[in-house]
Amino acid sequence: MLNYALLKTGICYDVRMRYHAKIVTSPSDYTDPHPEDPRRIFRIYKILAENGLINDPSLCGAENIGNLMQKVPVREATDEEILEIHSKEHLDYIVSTSHMSRQDLVSATTKSDSVYFNNESYQSARLSCGGAIEICKAVVENQVKNGLAVVRPPGHHAEPDVPGGFCLFSNVAVAAKNILKNYPEKIKKILILDWDVHHGNGTQKSFWNDPNVLYISLHRYEDGKFYPATNFGGPDKVGDGAGEGFNVNIPWTKPGMGDSDYLYAFNQIVMPIGLEFNPDFVIISSGFDAAEGDMLGGCLVSPDGYSQMTYMLKSLAAGNLAVVLEGGYNLDSIAKSALAVTKILLGDAPGRISNTLPKSETIKTVRDIIKIQSRYWKSLLPGYGSINMGENTLKNYDYLHDALRGNQVRKYMSNYSLVNLPIIREKGSPSYNDQILCSADIHKKGTVVVIVHDSPEVWGSIDPVLGTLDNSQSIVVDGSPRFIEWAQKNDYGVLDINIPRSITGHNSDNYSVANGSQDTCLYVWDNYIQCFDATKIIFVGINEAYSGIVHLVGHRETREKVSACISFIGDCQLRSIVTIIDEYITDWYYHSSLVFTSRYHPCWDKSLNPKRPRRKFGRVIMADQCGSNRILEERFQEAVEFIEEALESESEESDSG
Amino acid sequence: MLNYALLKTGICYDVRMRYHAKIVTSPSDYTDPHPEDPRRIFRIYKILAENGLINDPSLCGAENIGNLMQKVPVREATDEEILEIHSKEHLDYIVSTSHMSRQDLVSATTKSDSVYFNNESYQSARLSCGGAIEICKAVVENQVKNGLAVVRPPGHHAEPDVPGGFCLFSNVAVAAKNILKNYPEKIKKILILDWDVHHGNGTQKSFWNDPNVLYISLHRYEDGKFYPATNFGGPDKVGDGAGEGFNVNIPWTKPGMGDSDYLYAFNQIVMPIGLEFNPDFVIISSGFDAAEGDMLGGCLVSPDGYSQMTYMLKSLAAGNLAVVLEGGYNLDSIAKSALAVTKILLGDAPGRISNTLPKSETIKTVRDIIKIQSRYWKSLLPGYGSINMGENTLKNYDYLHDALRGNQVRKYMSNYSLVNLPIIREKGSPSYNDQILCSADIHKKGTVVVIVHDSPEVWGSIDPVLGTLDNSQSIVVDGSPRFIEWAQKNDYGVLDINIPRSITGHNSDNYSVANGSQDTCLYVWDNYIQCFDATKIIFVGINEAYSGIVHLVGHRETREKVSACISFIGDCQLRSIVTIIDEYITDWYYHSSLVFTSRYHPCWDKSLNPKRPRRKFGRVIMADQCGSNRILEERFQEAVEFIEEALESESEESDSG
Repeated sequence: MLNYALLKTGICYDVRMRYHAKIVTSPSDYTDPHPEDPRRIFRIYKILAENGLINDPSLCGAENIGNLMQKVPVREATDEEILEIHSKEHLDYIVSTSHMSRQDLVSATTKSDSVYFNNESYQSARLSCGGAIEICKAVVENQVKNGLAVVRPPGHHAEPDVPGGFCLFSNVAVAAKNILKNYPEKIKKILILDWDVHHGNGTQKSFWNDPNVLYISLHRYEDGKFYPATNFGGPDKVGDGAGEGFNVNIPWTKPGMGDSDYLYAFNQIVMPIGLEFNPDFVIISSGFDAAEGDMLGGCLVSPDGYSQMTYMLKSLAAGNLAVVLEGGYNLDSIAKSALAVTKILLGDAPGRISNTLPKSETIKTVRDIIKIQSRYWKSLLPGYGSINMGENTLKNYDYLHDALRGNQVRKYMSNYSLVNLPIIREKGSPSYNDQILCSADIHKKGTVVVIVHDSPEVWGSIDPVLGTLDNSQSIVVDGSPRFIEWAQKNDYGVLDINIPRSITGHNSDNYSVANGSQDTCLYVWDNYIQCFDATKIIFVGINEAYSGIVHLVGHRETREKVSACISFIGDCQLRSIVTIIDEYITDWYYHSSLVFTSRYHPCWDKSLNPKRPRRKFGRVIMADQCGSNRILEERFQEAVEFIEEALESESEESDSG
Repeated sequence: MLNYALLKTGICYDVRMRYHAKIVTSPSDYTDPHPEDPRRIFRIYKILAENGLINDPSLCGAENIGNLMQKVPVREATDEEILEIHSKEHLDYIVSTSHMSRQDLVSATTKSDSVYFNNESYQSARLSCGGAIEICKAVVENQVKNGLAVVRPPGHHAEPDVPGGFCLFSNVAVAAKNILKNYPEKIKKILILDWDVHHGNGTQKSFWNDPNVLYISLHRYEDGKFYPATNFGGPDKVGDGAGEGFNVNIPWTKPGMGDSDYLYAFNQIVMPIGLEFNPDFVIISSGFDAAEGDMLGGCLVSPDGYSQMTYMLKSLAAGNLAVVLEGGYNLDSIAKSALAVTKILLGDAPGRISNTLPKSETIKTVRDIIKIQSRYWKSLLPGYGSINMGENTLKNYDYLHDALRGNQVRKYMSNYSLVNLPIIREKGSPSYNDQILCSADIHKKGTVVVIVHDSPEVWGSIDPVLGTLDNSQSIVVDGSPRFIEWAQKNDYGVLDINIPRSITGHNSDNYSVANGSQDTCLYVWDNYIQCFDATKIIFVGINEAYSGIVHLVGHRETREKVSACISFIGDCQLRSIVTIIDEYITDWYYHSSLVFTSRYHPCWDKSLNPKRPRRKFGRVIMADQCGSNRILEERFQEAVEFIEEALESESEESDSG
């Protein structure tokens, strides 16, 4: 070798950290041991040795451990180091546990927030914290290329003033703060990535106002119900003062998150922000409680998933990376996960991930975070489709659905001579203006076509740089005119009902397209349609609003008059007819209806629904296209023929009758 | 060591490939040697040795080269192997060059598409191709963990039937095809990533119909003007038949692309598609002609940039990766780039990239590719803001800007009693309907406010999963009503001019908001405004359309009547007044105007413009907000006070005069 030296990977491990243990107070402490179990660090050390990464047959923490890894000795963190993060009162209290009576320890344990103490807890906590400091120091000083601290008790829940969640000192926070202090020229910016399944409230609090430490945490949150069960881990917690924008919470809304979800969040948020922050040093607060098999965490990250995440983080800071153990309670899971992480530190490629498509909840969470964090990180901005609404600062604006209905009304009034049909509402809203239009002489028509539709579809073209919508390249797709023109050609009356997705000004109401459409259809039937001269009614439903039609024909006796119910629903939920009128209604609806769905509608997924949709959903048909308006274009002719046949057969019936 | 063995990185290098060289036919061949220079492979081998990655002091290609890398012997590719890709005629022709006369070689060189021949070319080409095969084989058979083939001549321009662009056999294509053939159980899917600055037309053609080889190329394209100067490297070339969607071209629209652009394309396209494809093996077609310093390539990728890209690709296929040299003509640049790539193969972390923000052209290119490729790759779909327009299949739709104007007109007519002002156009378009509205009695008003505006801004909320616009959560922001209401309160006349961004139905015309606004303002002045009774005209410009006002007051004598020109332009380009009327016009415009810009407008960027904007641009003011409508809300009061003062001072003047 000339001048190219491959440094080893450092490891901190010390058997003395196994002495911190929960005092046994009941038989169940044996059968169901506390999850923060002293064996956690041993099992990780053991699997590294079993796989030849460490050469230590005695598993006692030998000095010389082979060619790949290098032992970094653990020492107790000093008062001075700990006090960089923690208050004197906090330190004194932890010190005091080292000479408490058994009874006092049990009582201290009981009244704490998920922390236990014995007389060795204090020393273990000092060693754990010192191990975190030493592994970081060894990397920063180029003694090792990167490092792993196999330490306990964990640290990220310990706040400056109070222990919590199995944590006594905030190990990673203390290490980061002391590295910044002691290597001011070399290390100016540290990224702490916390993939423990719980939010690291202690770490977040330690750097809340600090722009030099970027804290990113992925954790279960569930509206603040998951431990630590506060709102500090929420998406809107971005730091404050100079530290605003240097705190990034990625809070999962449910358990069961796996590799594809974590990788998606890494690709969309962690890595773009990480690259832009361009840290001098990276610390992973590495709980393995999101690992598959961890009952407390309830997530599904595989060892390959951990290896991919570690690998990505190693691409920052020229590989200056330290991994510090936090939680993780399934002994097998944490061992396998730690092995996968360590192999990446050594230089291996990460394992393959076969499913890379995230859950839709994950996509939503990630978009929400991008919306919030793009105020601070430019790399999240380009191509971002959702514009900050900024209603707070704006006084004059219309909701797009109201503006589109305004244009639609103008067009229908001028092109088709439709007029407004008044409807009485308790509340006013632009969304109720001109909600229903009809032919002027509708009450005298023999046949009436009732079109119940959502707001027209907008296929928007977003400026990829500015993120604003390009109105000249975006289109408004509206299928109703096809039916209006057809109806007018046949001298049928037309009733056009617009169902907005929300009622402007009443956002907090428990409104949905489905119930909005149901109420409106019943109202229009009761107050208007049934009083018309018309003997033949055709219903046309477009998108979600179609549910109002299904609801109406199930709740009123309409069979005498209604000839056909045609709906174009794309991927919307199928609605079944209720049989409260009589048992024949299902049969009638099946024969009188066509329900055109997209080819990707879940009802065609054989794995979910081995049989074709049941008759109570009407005659459900698979179209080639997606999207209700495209399907309407595809199947318009078929629909019209069906209607004409229905009208004719009724005429024959009435002729013969 | 127990059972954990770190494999070495393989390297193919053979001095015999240096014998292929251009026949010297003129003195300039000495002073300006052909870029595909025999020293290319030597310089790469040398830098690896100089940096201790290879232990070969003699630099002759020794057998045993140390602990880090392992020599993989190079052999000639066989006829059978070559014929997997190339035609018999092609092979025969290359064979024939080995015994051509000097004159025939020179003539073959002259008539080829950028290929030269000597009598050794044939053997070098066989070795280069064989080297590519052998390095892939060594990785697939786990003899080495990954590998680098330092070979020449390059391969990716050689099509099945014809050599080209310095390439005789399509080395990587031949290797990939033979690996698939010989390891059918182990290797079913190969990703070829080609970062040579030129499009790999030969590789693309070889797998055009093949779904088992995903070819992704990043290259300069410039509308097909850059070598190989065809449209085969275009964004729409996605493969065909079973191979449709397995060809991904990322064509740069200009030179000068650097690390941030390549990384952006990797993060947005290459890695999501790569992860979804989940290949069994990855080959990098590794030209280093996009490296900084390469005059032919004209790009700026740094060694750290190459290390980052290599690092990312190593995360696929569990690290089964082979790097095969293609082009790259600056001997220093290719050596440094190859060194950076090789360190990643060994297990190093990649270097840091300080600027991670891509050019806006890059963002656009990437969005265009996503639009095309999202038909085939689901991982590009979620959160994608721009919906496939699909005009081809749709018959009934309106452009959004026309629909929004329709609603605006309805609102202005009903709320402000404005009426349509007819304007004669050569062509019809929905964009011309109701383009100008005015107060019914405008010709009799003493003061008239002329508002010239773009289509209202839409702040769209895109459904993060479906990618469709949520109309109920999107808003339409329109600043004009503030001025209309203020004008009517003061009994001023109102003229509202809408300038769309394009004219629906006439997209191919050379139309822009700027020239559309200029034409319309002149027309309205000449045919209407100057004929009105009004003695005081106020112009209000919103966004780009404001340029029509600046154009008008520079090209017509308007100073007698125009009291103030107020514009809210956000980040739009500043327009200067021309001085064709007289030299006082600049002064007049400066004193009569307010031009409110965003705080991020380039005119405030001290590095671009050390001084504040010149007087010919009017009185340019920095607002706190961004976006012309937000700025209008912010500065409305200030604008109105300025106008009122202007109107008063004129009244005083006329009183005193």
